[in-house]
Amino acid sequence: MADPMAIADRLQAILGPSGLVPGPELAQRPAFPPYSCGSPLLVRPASTAELSAVLALCHETRTPVVVHGGRTGLVGGCTSGPGDLVVSTERLTAMAPVDVTGRTLEAGAGVTIAAAQAAAEDAGLLLAVDWGARGTATVGGGIATNAGGNQVFRYGMMREQVLGLEAVLADGTILSSMGRVIKNNAGPDPRQILIGSEGCFGVITRAVLRLRPRMPQRSTALVALQRFDCVPRLLDRLESGMDGRLTSFEAMWRGFHAPAARILARPPVDPQSPFVVLCEASGSDEAELSARMEGVLADLLGSGDISDAVIAGSERERADFWAIRDNVGVLFQLPNATLFDVSLPIAAMADYTADLEQSVRAAFGEVPFMLFGHLADQNLHIAFALPDDLASTHHRAEALVYDPLSRIPGASMSAEHGIGLLKRPWLGRTRTPEEIAIMRRLKAALDPAGILNPGLVVAQDVADGS
Amino acid sequence: MADPMAIADRLQAILGPSGLVPGPELAQRPAFPPYSCGSPLLVRPASTAELSAVLALCHETRTPVVVHGGRTGLVGGCTSGPGDLVVSTERLTAMAPVDVTGRTLEAGAGVTIAAAQAAAEDAGLLLAVDWGARGTATVGGGIATNAGGNQVFRYGMMREQVLGLEAVLADGTILSSMGRVIKNNAGPDPRQILIGSEGCFGVITRAVLRLRPRMPQRSTALVALQRFDCVPRLLDRLESGMDGRLTSFEAMWRGFHAPAARILARPPVDPQSPFVVLCEASGSDEAELSARMEGVLADLLGSGDISDAVIAGSERERADFWAIRDNVGVLFQLPNATLFDVSLPIAAMADYTADLEQSVRAAFGEVPFMLFGHLADQNLHIAFALPDDLASTHHRAEALVYDPLSRIPGASMSAEHGIGLLKRPWLGRTRTPEEIAIMRRLKAALDPAGILNPGLVVAQDVADGS
Repeated sequence: MADPMAIADRLQAILGPSGLVPGPELAQRPAFPPYSCGSPLLVRPASTAELSAVLALCHETRTPVVVHGGRTGLVGGCTSGPGDLVVSTERLTAMAPVDVTGRTLEAGAGVTIAAAQAAAEDAGLLLAVDWGARGTATVGGGIATNAGGNQVFRYGMMREQVLGLEAVLADGTILSSMGRVIKNNAGPDPRQILIGSEGCFGVITRAVLRLRPRMPQRSTALVALQRFDCVPRLLDRLESGMDGRLTSFEAMWRGFHAPAARILARPPVDPQSPFVVLCEASGSDEAELSARMEGVLADLLGSGDISDAVIAGSERERADFWAIRDNVGVLFQLPNATLFDVSLPIAAMADYTADLEQSVRAAFGEVPFMLFGHLADQNLHIAFALPDDLASTHHRAEALVYDPLSRIPGASMSAEHGIGLLKRPWLGRTRTPEEIAIMRRLKAALDPAGILNPGLVVAQDVADGS
Repeated sequence: MADPMAIADRLQAILGPSGLVPGPELAQRPAFPPYSCGSPLLVRPASTAELSAVLALCHETRTPVVVHGGRTGLVGGCTSGPGDLVVSTERLTAMAPVDVTGRTLEAGAGVTIAAAQAAAEDAGLLLAVDWGARGTATVGGGIATNAGGNQVFRYGMMREQVLGLEAVLADGTILSSMGRVIKNNAGPDPRQILIGSEGCFGVITRAVLRLRPRMPQRSTALVALQRFDCVPRLLDRLESGMDGRLTSFEAMWRGFHAPAARILARPPVDPQSPFVVLCEASGSDEAELSARMEGVLADLLGSGDISDAVIAGSERERADFWAIRDNVGVLFQLPNATLFDVSLPIAAMADYTADLEQSVRAAFGEVPFMLFGHLADQNLHIAFALPDDLASTHHRAEALVYDPLSRIPGASMSAEHGIGLLKRPWLGRTRTPEEIAIMRRLKAALDPAGILNPGLVVAQDVADGS
């Protein structure tokens, strides 16, 4: 593999001086830990053609490339070393006017999710993905990582929003598959290979995103439950009762909800409730939605399935409910907080979480242990504190979380955060050797020189677990 | 490539006598034209392991394989010649009990769509795909072709229903990716490559399908419109007004609706209406749905956007409305009927259809010309009659339909029917050379000996158009 500085002149000839950002400036750029940037050079192409020329050069010279979107990933995917060239999509920010009749938005990879959402909303439509880092995360990064968020069970992951995609393959080939239709069975779908490949199969440059009718009104409830088996019953009853218009079902276990609720002077439901769920439906008529929500919740109060429920009576109350759910600051106050993102069938969740809490306590003592998640997506976030000698305990903590998942049919050790650098050693816990082998076969087919994000996901050395 | 009869003994050793069906019996099996079966031998493995052994043998001996599901495809994908071994999934019919809490159904590739739908319904849930051939088409075939149908804009194609997938690759490798969760970003998703690959990348053996809450009540309307530009306005108003609970939006142009409506003694709306749309919403309360539907339609009658509308007042009336839409018999009564399935942005549809009708008339005279489609999916079905010398006119007809699509950004020459054998020459009309090249690169990576459905989709010889 070649040194990126050895091709700096040729890169400048392609991009001009404003297309290059030198290492010292680059190292100042903020990103979530465990990101670290040791690269001596970032390039920021202003067009797909420029990016194509950059990658063709890297392919020719065997220069390793690390791709940067908004750098808000949680798995260290944008980490670079001194031998890497960083390629950023930050100047690919063109956005075409929304096609209101066709309900599509064409956006460059560098457009932020928030900007894309705003463009859709200005046209009276909805871009139906949303997650916390919306202001920094990009369309390209969201597609490359198949990001999810709060409304996935109703509208799908980023994959389901992508009607068209343009990407540059490792050798500089421009793959343009800019469909604008929901149905497109003209051969196997090359877009699907790139979505969620974390930049290992190609660099996304542009997309046509599907927009939906805007659902301007919401009804939001906070519901307390005493037993976990009542939680899926609540989900089932709400999904049926709200006619599939439920958009959020955010479950919080006491360990998370109790401290998170301290953000409010008066928590809406008892902080000591074993389970609290934030439920939200969206449509065109808040009164109708709330009346239905109330009907379902009254039934469940009557049958004892739920112990308390409050429906937001104002935007202020709704914001308060969400402030609890979004109070992820409590996680980062944990000493040596370690955070996980897994998914497993709801039927297996009670046993898995009880066993995990027990094994964490056995290993690390009475540390704070927090659970919450997008339960309708079977997506569970897990956080706990670790003793101070983090280096020696982190791997042990990971084993406690991931090992049992390999015995739960259909579970995944990464629900929405991806694999990146951080989770590579554990991929084999819920992927078979054949699945990993096929990922590598595809990598070899699409990036034969192995220049794109060479350390991530399918790296040959570690993905079989340890 | 080897002759399948040369390995008949070894196949029988793997499968036993009941696993083999000889050519003469095989030739009697019904399937849609242009299917033809020249194969001397069909094998029907009873398990994934048997199928794996069969494919490993075919890979070793370079025996071409044609895969059979329900043989209801419309593009000749199950056509075989004397040198092909046919592999059928018809004995892979195991179905696990529905996981009601997890809302999943595990089914073998040979289970019919109707049987899978019935299993879901028995559990109080919905398998949210449906199309005409449901009684014969299979789960495996539906996934292999990424089938669509009537409810795609609400629930997605077959791709969106697949949570888990098991397949056998060309060399006999069993790829088991039997997830049971909506969110699974543990590396690039190998399932996505197989879905919609028409059996060219692997043979699907089993799947975990996502189920949804059942929406037991429906409101159904038949709406007449005078101008095409009012059709997307109707769609937009209904989607918003029904809170995203619209499940069907089936547009019929006069050329189709007028003859199709003759199936009823008294058509609900004027058969001479230029455009008629069957609109259906589903939820839990028919009265509420119908009241909303009526509100939207009354508004649009007032503004002159629609000229007539009837809401079904009984199951009988609803069935009548659907009988018109499903009266595809009128297509097959056309002399030398030729049928197309394309998709394009709605904004381009009025010009495209007007130009097409004109060019068809110019080429073939005053032949019947029919248009209808799943308009919310941008999916248009086109049918017209051809003069008697079919051989010389069919290619010309295809050119009239497909050539203009290459000039409409984002269009697709196959919306839901796939490519198969029949549409191979036209793939390049809406796929770029780079897209086709990447399909072939993937084919080479997954089936290096090229034994699986060797004549279909990505066959080297013809996909660049003619």
